[in-house]
Amino acid sequence: MSRIVNSTGTREVTISNAPPYVALKKGERLPTVMTVATSDPSGGAGIEADLKTFTAHRCYGLTGMAALTAQTPEGVYAIHEIPKEHFKLTLDSCLRDMRVDAIKTGMLTKPAVEVLYETFSAMPADARPHLVVDPVLVATSGSTLVSDQSVIDFIKTLSPLATLLTPNAYEAGRILGRESLELNSVEDLIDVACELQKTTLCPNVLLKGGHAPWVDSNGQKRVTDVLRLGNKTVLYRSVFCTSENTHGTGCTLASAIASNLAHGEALQHAVFGGIQYVHNAIEIGCTVTQPHVKKNGPINHVYAIKQPLQEMVEDLSYSAHALRVDENRSNSTASSSNSLVSQIRDSGSFFEYLISDPRVKPHWETYTRHEFVRCVADGTLPRENFRFFLEQDYAYLDNYAQIHCIAASKAPTTEDFDKSVHIVSEIKTEMEKHREKMMRQFDISDMKHFDQIKMGSALRNYARFFDDVARNGSWVHLCVALSPCLMGYGNALRNFKDKITVPKDDIYHSWCEDYLAPWYVEAMDAGLILLDRVCQMSDDWDTLCKIYASVCKLETEFWDAALYYSPENL
Amino acid sequence: MSRIVNSTGTREVTISNAPPYVALKKGERLPTVMTVATSDPSGGAGIEADLKTFTAHRCYGLTGMAALTAQTPEGVYAIHEIPKEHFKLTLDSCLRDMRVDAIKTGMLTKPAVEVLYETFSAMPADARPHLVVDPVLVATSGSTLVSDQSVIDFIKTLSPLATLLTPNAYEAGRILGRESLELNSVEDLIDVACELQKTTLCPNVLLKGGHAPWVDSNGQKRVTDVLRLGNKTVLYRSVFCTSENTHGTGCTLASAIASNLAHGEALQHAVFGGIQYVHNAIEIGCTVTQPHVKKNGPINHVYAIKQPLQEMVEDLSYSAHALRVDENRSNSTASSSNSLVSQIRDSGSFFEYLISDPRVKPHWETYTRHEFVRCVADGTLPRENFRFFLEQDYAYLDNYAQIHCIAASKAPTTEDFDKSVHIVSEIKTEMEKHREKMMRQFDISDMKHFDQIKMGSALRNYARFFDDVARNGSWVHLCVALSPCLMGYGNALRNFKDKITVPKDDIYHSWCEDYLAPWYVEAMDAGLILLDRVCQMSDDWDTLCKIYASVCKLETEFWDAALYYSPENL
Repeated sequence: MSRIVNSTGTREVTISNAPPYVALKKGERLPTVMTVATSDPSGGAGIEADLKTFTAHRCYGLTGMAALTAQTPEGVYAIHEIPKEHFKLTLDSCLRDMRVDAIKTGMLTKPAVEVLYETFSAMPADARPHLVVDPVLVATSGSTLVSDQSVIDFIKTLSPLATLLTPNAYEAGRILGRESLELNSVEDLIDVACELQKTTLCPNVLLKGGHAPWVDSNGQKRVTDVLRLGNKTVLYRSVFCTSENTHGTGCTLASAIASNLAHGEALQHAVFGGIQYVHNAIEIGCTVTQPHVKKNGPINHVYAIKQPLQEMVEDLSYSAHALRVDENRSNSTASSSNSLVSQIRDSGSFFEYLISDPRVKPHWETYTRHEFVRCVADGTLPRENFRFFLEQDYAYLDNYAQIHCIAASKAPTTEDFDKSVHIVSEIKTEMEKHREKMMRQFDISDMKHFDQIKMGSALRNYARFFDDVARNGSWVHLCVALSPCLMGYGNALRNFKDKITVPKDDIYHSWCEDYLAPWYVEAMDAGLILLDRVCQMSDDWDTLCKIYASVCKLETEFWDAALYYSPENL
Repeated sequence: MSRIVNSTGTREVTISNAPPYVALKKGERLPTVMTVATSDPSGGAGIEADLKTFTAHRCYGLTGMAALTAQTPEGVYAIHEIPKEHFKLTLDSCLRDMRVDAIKTGMLTKPAVEVLYETFSAMPADARPHLVVDPVLVATSGSTLVSDQSVIDFIKTLSPLATLLTPNAYEAGRILGRESLELNSVEDLIDVACELQKTTLCPNVLLKGGHAPWVDSNGQKRVTDVLRLGNKTVLYRSVFCTSENTHGTGCTLASAIASNLAHGEALQHAVFGGIQYVHNAIEIGCTVTQPHVKKNGPINHVYAIKQPLQEMVEDLSYSAHALRVDENRSNSTASSSNSLVSQIRDSGSFFEYLISDPRVKPHWETYTRHEFVRCVADGTLPRENFRFFLEQDYAYLDNYAQIHCIAASKAPTTEDFDKSVHIVSEIKTEMEKHREKMMRQFDISDMKHFDQIKMGSALRNYARFFDDVARNGSWVHLCVALSPCLMGYGNALRNFKDKITVPKDDIYHSWCEDYLAPWYVEAMDAGLILLDRVCQMSDDWDTLCKIYASVCKLETEFWDAALYYSPENL
């Protein structure tokens, strides 16, 4: 990256040309979205949340400010209304000189609604951008800009021109002129959404259920959002997020939907993407307030974004690469390992260290003492459950081999590379054995059967986790993620060795014996050595423990799925 | 994703829980950056560009608006100043309730500077956020908010408290009280930067060279940005971007630097990241204006961001996955291939189609008739060049094997998977042969030699391209990217077959013979069949041609590097 060019200690750094991204074209036609709303300088809601959402959706954002607040999650301290004339000049100049694919409205003022309505209704219907109206009556922080009744009048003016109206339960009640709504069932929600279509003349209405959660038969709090799409209904069901930090969720949802519409997505897909994005942004969350601020904090708009400088360091084409790689190398060899390595010595091996970690231990125990294995060992597992297991396991091995390929591609040395490639061929041999066993046992004649196995949800979640580690993790992370499968089966069978009472000629017996055989013990020994090697390459054992715990849990769920399998559950 | 739940046609969609991202922790402590500046509603500069930049840097953005403009790239139509009292309430409440790691200033008003200075100087020095001052005098669009002289006074007030001041050449001149600066050499730039440190009392100054480009000995227009870091100097050299769309580059640079500082990066790295980000954002660009707007358009702040909904469709853990995969599958089998496949029939094979494409052809020709091959064939290539080539080629094969592993992990069928894994083992055999040859020929005894080969810039660019396709492309893209190496070597040697005059016992001779041998011809035949298969799986042949052209160019540059190699060039 840099070298000394003269005796005065001047350093020279080369800025690289933009790399030839496969997915990028020069002068990209970015979708454009304008927010017409009020500014929240603390960044959690309003114009600021909208711009963050547009940006996180790879859209180009524009703003039409109706008013500015001075606010934080603690309260609203001042409101400054923007003069009508200034707002009009802003809207007119943007619509004249810029391409605007969608407009999203939030908290508005009387002048802003008037100007927006005049301008928008004067455009030819087919030249109008998408309009998503979020009928903000009360901000999460408890303050409102103008009287509820005049806001409701604004909304009724704009709604017939809009693509979508996104009220919550409270706003729906006020728009319909009722103090409170009885929302005790999904049918109630659908009825209210239909009524809103009639009252507002907006062709599509998304009635948000976040303020009216319900409890399912397992005691889980759930939310249903109802989309009336013309004369069709789509229900979006999710688990209720318990976070206290939900400032700006309404703005964010409407902005995400507008962004997806600007990308050309169909409305029901745009809404799906919006709800899922907000759900993730709440779940993942962020800490950006001072300690005395206890609730109403903002959501994490940027959870899926990577820091550019970090990407440049990892990316061969940037001049930052060389320097930082060297720096990291010298750091990691110098700092970490010594004290940590002595910690492993105490535990015997890094594997022992991992499974003794308080976060891993309960999952490791549940996994390696799983009822599924006992039921195979004593022959009490129904045949159809075992068949389901073998099929899922076959599909798992396919994925397992793929992930080992990615591990190979990240291997630090030729030797590690060769070992990974060797494991891949061993997995392929195991898959062949699986196929033969299943064809004999279950009278399968068509090889296509194996390509058509449908992944169950336990396997999908497991594969997703591998995929995430493969995308975002290092070789070390991958080695740790791939370990519990190898180590767990061997240990589980050892735990249940005395319970193997199923006859020797039964497929259950040979399945048990496989994981006790000398070749498997050898593979486990190699796995132990690999973990010892890997732990010395990382000083973030915390993350390694978390990965181990997660995978042990996924293994448990994989066996749960087989144990409790019934064709109707799928 | 969805199923019919009742006879009225209601659909039900499940929102997934946030996936267990390895890299994410709940309640993430996001770096926070506040912009104190003026709003540009058209989104290219000012507060809007700042917020986009913070977001693209995975930072949490806050705003302190000094004024609002009504503007577009065509001009500034109105300015609305925010009252001092409102600005003060905004700044005070944000600094009290929110964590602010860095502040970036842009175009300011007198009241805003006064409040900012009072507040900032009243904070204990060790509790102050980083302050990056962008001394905006004239916006790219040619308009200014207050008189230059009062702005200069503001800047002089704030600068001693700032971490960094980022003037361009014009602003530097005005701050130093001179009508124009003589900037004819890097030394001139350094002198001015030093003078700015003395005049403003800001400890660090980044003097931007974009307004004073220079031409190097190859006629290439270049830019040098000079950072005075205390008493050290760092020079950032880049190629001048010829784009007319550079609206908001100043705001964006200062915001990117502030974001990197908030992430805890050292100042010289923060500046590197900032310059590189702006460089990419200009180079990649975007089209968001109406056709009559010809210049001064905005840069692409979101070039590295992926659309969340698209990511969800590709991601197993989202319920969007299942539906969209099915939709895509039925689309792609239905729509594409038929007419396209008849196009291949005319060309004989998809390979012939690719190398006849006008974008590919010139690069394919230059590659497969490369002087390097002639010089090996007739023995005129200096030995040290050949040694350099073999070493780079060895390192290339290592990378080539890795990328085949990733291709395997993306293979659509077990058969494709097995083929890729088989190729990996063949490449490993070839690498062994390479090693033995080189050890004999160049008297190398230490195997470590091969692990220590330093990648030259041609190889780095090539590897970077593979890496990009591996990250962002599909199996089809990867197969196409991996093809030119295989097909090109065979065809090049066929083109120069008659020129092989080097003695049979020479290493040059055996190198030539390798690519004419029956095993290689077989491999090429398999490669032809693969391409025919692959092209039927894609209806975006345009991208496939572009990939093929890029890789042929990278192969040419790889041979160029060996042909023109000299130890000093490295």
